[in-house]
Amino acid sequence: MSCVASDATQQFAPGAPRVIVAGATGFAGALAAHLLWRHPGFELVTVSGRSEVGRRLDHLYPRYRVPLEIEELDLDRIEPIDAAVVAYPHAAAAPTVGALRERGARVVDLSADFRLGSLATYEQWYGEHPRPDLLDDAVYGLSELHRERIAGAGIVANPGCYPTAAVLGLAPLARAGLIADVVIDAKQGISGAGRAFDETTHLSMAGENILPYKVACHRHTPEIEEQLGELDPAHPESPVQFQAHLVPLDQGELASCYVTPTRVVAAAELRELYGDAYANEPFVEVVDTPPGTREVRETNFCRVFAAADGHTGKVVVLSAIDNLWKGTSSQAVQNLNIMFGLSETEGLL
Amino acid sequence: MSCVASDATQQFAPGAPRVIVAGATGFAGALAAHLLWRHPGFELVTVSGRSEVGRRLDHLYPRYRVPLEIEELDLDRIEPIDAAVVAYPHAAAAPTVGALRERGARVVDLSADFRLGSLATYEQWYGEHPRPDLLDDAVYGLSELHRERIAGAGIVANPGCYPTAAVLGLAPLARAGLIADVVIDAKQGISGAGRAFDETTHLSMAGENILPYKVACHRHTPEIEEQLGELDPAHPESPVQFQAHLVPLDQGELASCYVTPTRVVAAAELRELYGDAYANEPFVEVVDTPPGTREVRETNFCRVFAAADGHTGKVVVLSAIDNLWKGTSSQAVQNLNIMFGLSETEGLL
Amino acid sequence: MSCVASDATQQFAPGAPRVIVAGATGFAGALAAHLLWRHPGFELVTVSGRSEVGRRLDHLYPRYRVPLEIEELDLDRIEPIDAAVVAYPHAAAAPTVGALRERGARVVDLSADFRLGSLATYEQWYGEHPRPDLLDDAVYGLSELHRERIAGAGIVANPGCYPTAAVLGLAPLARAGLIADVVIDAKQGISGAGRAFDETTHLSMAGENILPYKVACHRHTPEIEEQLGELDPAHPESPVQFQAHLVPLDQGELASCYVTPTRVVAAAELRELYGDAYANEPFVEVVDTPPGTREVRETNFCRVFAAADGHTGKVVVLSAIDNLWKGTSSQAVQNLNIMFGLSETEGLL
Amino acid sequence: MSCVASDATQQFAPGAPRVIVAGATGFAGALAAHLLWRHPGFELVTVSGRSEVGRRLDHLYPRYRVPLEIEELDLDRIEPIDAAVVAYPHAAAAPTVGALRERGARVVDLSADFRLGSLATYEQWYGEHPRPDLLDDAVYGLSELHRERIAGAGIVANPGCYPTAAVLGLAPLARAGLIADVVIDAKQGISGAGRAFDETTHLSMAGENILPYKVACHRHTPEIEEQLGELDPAHPESPVQFQAHLVPLDQGELASCYVTPTRVVAAAELRELYGDAYANEPFVEVVDTPPGTREVRETNFCRVFAAADGHTGKVVVLSAIDNLWKGTSSQAVQNLNIMFGLSETEGLL
Repeated sequence: MSCVASDATQQFAPGAPRVIVAGATGFAGALAAHLLWRHPGFELVTVSGRSEVGRRLDHLYPRYRVPLEIEELDLDRIEPIDAAVVAYPHAAAAPTVGALRERGARVVDLSADFRLGSLATYEQWYGEHPRPDLLDDAVYGLSELHRERIAGAGIVANPGCYPTAAVLGLAPLARAGLIADVVIDAKQGISGAGRAFDETTHLSMAGENILPYKVACHRHTPEIEEQLGELDPAHPESPVQFQAHLVPLDQGELASCYVTPTRVVAAAELRELYGDAYANEPFVEVVDTPPGTREVRETNFCRVFAAADGHTGKVVVLSAIDNLWKGTSSQAVQNLNIMFGLSETEGLL
Repeated sequence: MSCVASDATQQFAPGAPRVIVAGATGFAGALAAHLLWRHPGFELVTVSGRSEVGRRLDHLYPRYRVPLEIEELDLDRIEPIDAAVVAYPHAAAAPTVGALRERGARVVDLSADFRLGSLATYEQWYGEHPRPDLLDDAVYGLSELHRERIAGAGIVANPGCYPTAAVLGLAPLARAGLIADVVIDAKQGISGAGRAFDETTHLSMAGENILPYKVACHRHTPEIEEQLGELDPAHPESPVQFQAHLVPLDQGELASCYVTPTRVVAAAELRELYGDAYANEPFVEVVDTPPGTREVRETNFCRVFAAADGHTGKVVVLSAIDNLWKGTSSQAVQNLNIMFGLSETEGLL
Repeated sequence: MSCVASDATQQFAPGAPRVIVAGATGFAGALAAHLLWRHPGFELVTVSGRSEVGRRLDHLYPRYRVPLEIEELDLDRIEPIDAAVVAYPHAAAAPTVGALRERGARVVDLSADFRLGSLATYEQWYGEHPRPDLLDDAVYGLSELHRERIAGAGIVANPGCYPTAAVLGLAPLARAGLIADVVIDAKQGISGAGRAFDETTHLSMAGENILPYKVACHRHTPEIEEQLGELDPAHPESPVQFQAHLVPLDQGELASCYVTPTRVVAAAELRELYGDAYANEPFVEVVDTPPGTREVRETNFCRVFAAADGHTGKVVVLSAIDNLWKGTSSQAVQNLNIMFGLSETEGLL
Repeated sequence: MSCVASDATQQFAPGAPRVIVAGATGFAGALAAHLLWRHPGFELVTVSGRSEVGRRLDHLYPRYRVPLEIEELDLDRIEPIDAAVVAYPHAAAAPTVGALRERGARVVDLSADFRLGSLATYEQWYGEHPRPDLLDDAVYGLSELHRERIAGAGIVANPGCYPTAAVLGLAPLARAGLIADVVIDAKQGISGAGRAFDETTHLSMAGENILPYKVACHRHTPEIEEQLGELDPAHPESPVQFQAHLVPLDQGELASCYVTPTRVVAAAELRELYGDAYANEPFVEVVDTPPGTREVRETNFCRVFAAADGHTGKVVVLSAIDNLWKGTSSQAVQNLNIMFGLSETEGLL
C-alpha cells in the first residue's frame, strides 16, 4: 500500500511526554493510539500488540491513520518513556502495568485490574489478583470525580464504559444522599464487544437484534456500587440493579437510570443539583431533552438528562456517551492530560 | 409493473368470513392485509386507505404481495362483510369502528380508542372520546389474557406493542400479587414510529443512535397499569415506571422489567409460576437464556425470561416480541381467529 | 429452554418424500431445513452438522423453529431417504453427494462441485475434483432455465447466488444473441459471507462500509460465462467482467448488468424479449421501475428490470433477489419440487 | 439546553478570512460550518438557513458543536465577509452566489449551477440558468485537477460527490487517452439523499435494501463526461454509462469503474500511471487492496485502486470517498484553503 498522506510526521511540542500504547490492535488501544498521535501534547513513540506484529497500525485501522509498525512489547529494550496506556484483558494487564511502573512510566490501565478498591470484591468477580501490591498506587480514573487524585497517580484505572455513563448520571443524586434504590438499564453498540469475532458481533446475528446479556451478573455492577457508595457515605453498600443490552449500532451507549429517591425531589431541585455539579465540567453537558447517543458519537462528551416523574415519584436519569471514546479511550487521554498538567480538553475537542 | 406471480388468486375456504382492512397504507394495516391475504380461514375483500387510493397495495409494499387496489372506504357501498381490522390513528378510529359495528361487522381496532377501561383515563391522555357509547362493546385484545371475552366481542381493542410485551412478561407475577414496584425499560425498532417521515426515522439520524423519548409521559403507561391492576386486585392502582427507547433496527421490541417483589421470590418458584402460566400457550415461550428480539422477528411469538437477582432481591423479566407482529398485526389476526372460532394459530405459523 | 410452541409436529402429506439436510448449521442449510420443515410435500427426517451435534436446530436458529437435534451424518445407519440437500463447502460436498447417490437418494448440492460443465474449468478455479465420475449425473439447477433436465436429475447443482441473479437478468438477451460485452457489478448483504466470524462480518467493521472484494478473480465468473455461453451458442466463450461487493445489510443481492449489445436494441424490443421470457414464470417478475432488494427479501422471487440507454446505446439490466432464498436455499426447494413432481411453488409462497 | 462546553470561543488566527455558510441546515452546509468553526485559518461569522431561523446550529446538529444561531440571510445587513459556502439547491444557488460576488465575497458553491462548462448541457439537464453571466467567473472545484485555477477563482463550483469519486479514479487513464469505453457503477450511503424525509431515507424502508435509481438519467453523468473529455482531448465526447445505487449506511461512497482500454494495459503501467498521478497528492491514496468506504469515513481522503483484468482485458478502478466529506463539504474547505493561500490540508487532518 502506498499511503503518501498518512506517512506525515507526528506534530507535538518539544519535550512532550513520551507515551506508548500496549495492546494497540484492539478497538480501545487503536483509538487511544489515534488520539495520542494527533495530540499536540504527547509524543506517541510505540504501539505494541500481541498479534499483528510487523503490520502497520494504519493498515489495520485505516481511518486512524497512525503509520507506526506494531511491535512486540519488550520493556527491556524500549527507549525511556513517560507514560503508557495499557489495553490488555484483566489479569493480563496487571503484570505489564507493574513492569511499566518499575521503569518509571505512569500508566493509564484500561482493564478492570485496578478499578475496584476492595481486593475481596475483585477476587470474587475476576479471580486471583496478579499484583495486589500495586492497588495502593492506583486511582479510579473517572476524570470528573477524581481529578485531584488522578493528577498525582502512578496508575490510573480507567473506568468501565457502563460505570462511566451510570456514575456521571447518578453522582449528583448520590452526593446528595438521594438514592434509596436504583435500576440501571444500559444499552450499548456492538463495538462494546470489542474485536471479538462471534455470534454477538456478526452483522447477520447482531443486526435486527436487541440482546440482553449477563442478567444479574455483570462485572460492572460492583464498580458502580463502589463509586456510588463512596459518594454517598450514608448508603455505602446499596446494591444496584444493573442490566446490559447490545443494540445494532457501532459506537454509542445510554444508561437509563431509575431512582427511587429517599425523599420527594422536585424538578427545580434536580435542575439545581445537576447544574451545580456540572457547571464547570468541560465534557459533561446537562441537557433538557432526552439525549440520543448520536449526539455524542466520537466525542469525549457525556450528556445527562434528569427528570422527576410526578406520577411515580421516581427520578429518571438518562446518560449518553460514546462507549469507545468517553467510555474508554478518550477518557484515557483526558486522564493523561490531567496527569501531565495539560489542559484537560487538549487533543479532545 | 407486470407482476405475473403476485396476481395469483387468494386461497381460502368456502364460506370463510369476509374481512376488510381499513387503513392499509400504514405499516400495521399493510401487514394485517398480508397476513389475511395468505390466511386460509379469511377472505380479504377490500383494503382501504386515506392516501394512495387507486394504487395497488403490492406496489406500495412489494414484499406483502397483496394484489388489491387501495380504495377509499365507502361503507354505504361496500358489500356485506363479517369483520374489519381498523388501522387508523386514535380518535379517527372510533367513528369508523362505530359505523362498521352498525353494519354488523366485528372489528379489531388497532388504535388506542378502546384499550382503556376508564373513560376518564382515556380523556386525560388522548382528549375527548369520539364514541364513548361503544366502550361497553369492547374487550382488551391481549389474546392470552382475555381470549374468552374476545371470542364473543364486537370490538377488540388490539393492545399497544409495549403493553403486549410488558404485560405478557409481568402477568404471572401480577396474578400472584408479587409486584410491589416495577420499572419497565422498553426498546423498539424504528418501524414502531410507523410510516412517519421525520428525524426519528431518517436512517442518517436514527442510525447509530439510541434515543429515549417521552420521559414520564408515554401513553402506554396507563394501559399497562390498567392491565396489571386487573390481574392483581390487591394492588389495583400501582403506578408503573415506563420508559421507551428507539434503537436502530426495523422490527423488534424488548421490555426489560425490574420488579421489586412483595416478598422474597426464589428461582424455583419463578420457574413454576411462568411454566404454569404459559405451558399451554401456543405463542408464549418461557426461555432460560435472555431472549434477543431477532429470535422472534416476523413471528407472533413472545419469548419471556425471568430471573431472581440474589444480590438485589429484585426479579428481572425480559420479554421479546416483534412490535409489528405480536405487538400489532399478527396479534390482530390471532384475535380474529379467536373471534371466528378458528384454531388460534391458523395462518400464523 | 422450554419451547412448547416449537415442538409442534411437522405437517406433511402421507407418503411424502423423506429428505435430510446435511450441513444444517450454516445459514444455507438451516434455511433449507426451515423451508422443508414447514413444507407440506416433504418430510424432513434428519438435520446433520459437523459441529453443534446434539444441539437442537431451533436453539441455534430460533426463528427457523425446526425442533430437530443436529446429528452427525452416518449414512450407514440412516433410515431410507428419498432426497438430500447438501450444504458443505466445495470439495467436501462431492464425496458425500456420491455416498448419498449410492444409497439411492437424489441430491440438491449447494456447493460449487457440480456447477461447472467443464472439469478443466473446475480444476482451474477450485483444484482437483473429488468425484469427477459424478459430473455426468449432475444438472445445473437454475430452475427457470433447466427445469426439464432438473426433473430427471440425480444431482442438481444449485447455482451460486450471483449467477442466479445475473443469469436470470441476462438470459433473454443472451438467448437473442444480443450480448457483445457485459459488465456485472453485484452487491450483496453480509449473510453472503455465511457464518464466518471475521473482519468481513463484524458489525463494527462491515457496518458503514461498502467493500469490493476478489477483483478479477471471483469464482462465480466461470459459472456465469458457461451459462450465458450455453444460451448464446454464437458467442460461447465471451468473457464476463464480474465484480462483487459486500454492503451492510443481512439478506439481499442486486446484480447491475451493463450490456453492450451486438446491435441497437429499442425499448419496445426489450419489453417484448423480457415479457416473453418470463410471462409464465411463477418466480420471475419483470418490473418497470428499478427493483430494490427489499422488495424480494425472504422470498423466492427475482425481480428484473431492463432499459435501453439511448445516450450510450447500452442496455442496463437490474436483477434483485434474496441471496439466501432464491440465491440459495429456496431455489433448492424449488428444485426439489421439480424433481419430485410437485407444484413448483409449493411451500414457497 | 445548557451546553456549557460547546459555548467555547472559536479559535482562529488574527486577520483570518471571514466566511459564512448559507444554507447551513442541510447535511452539507452543517458539515461545512463544523469544519470551518474548528478551522484555525478561517473565522466563521454567520450560518444562515431558510428554515430553523433562530435555532442554534448545535441544537440541530449536536455533534457538530457550532454554537451559532441560524439567521435569515440578509446580504444588505451582513458585516463584510471574504468568503462564502453556498449550500442551496440548484437554480436557487446562482442568484445568491451572484449577490455575494457583487459584495466582493469569493464563493464555493455546492450546487450544480456552475459545474458544467456548457450552458446548453446545463439547460438540458436542469432547465433555464438563473445567472449565465457568471459562468465565466466559475472554476470546477475538483481540487486535485484544477487547483491553479481554483486559487484565483471568484466562484468555485464544488463537484458532485459521484463525479469526485469517479473522476479521481479515472483521471490517470483519461489523461493517457486510455479510455475507449467506461461503465461507472456507484454506491452511496443514505446521507447522499440529504435531509429529505421520504421513502428513500426511512430506516424501515432504506434498511435491508440496495436501491438502484435514476437509470440512464442521472445528472452527474454530463459532469463526469465533461471532466473526462477535458482530460482526454482525443475523446472529448465519449458517453459514460453511469448508474447510482443507495445502500444502507450513513456516509460512504464507492465508484466501481470498468474501463475498456484503447489498447492493452499491463499491471506495471497502471501502477506507474496511478503512482505518478497521485504521488504528491495529500488526499489521494493509491492502494493495492480494494478499498472499503469505511477506511475513509469522515475524512477528506480518496482511496483509489486500479487493476488490469487479464481475463477480459478491461481495467477495474475502485474509488472510495466519504460522500459528505471529500464528496462535498471537506472538499469545499480544501478549495477555500487553496483560494486563500493556506496549506491545502489545514483543518482537514
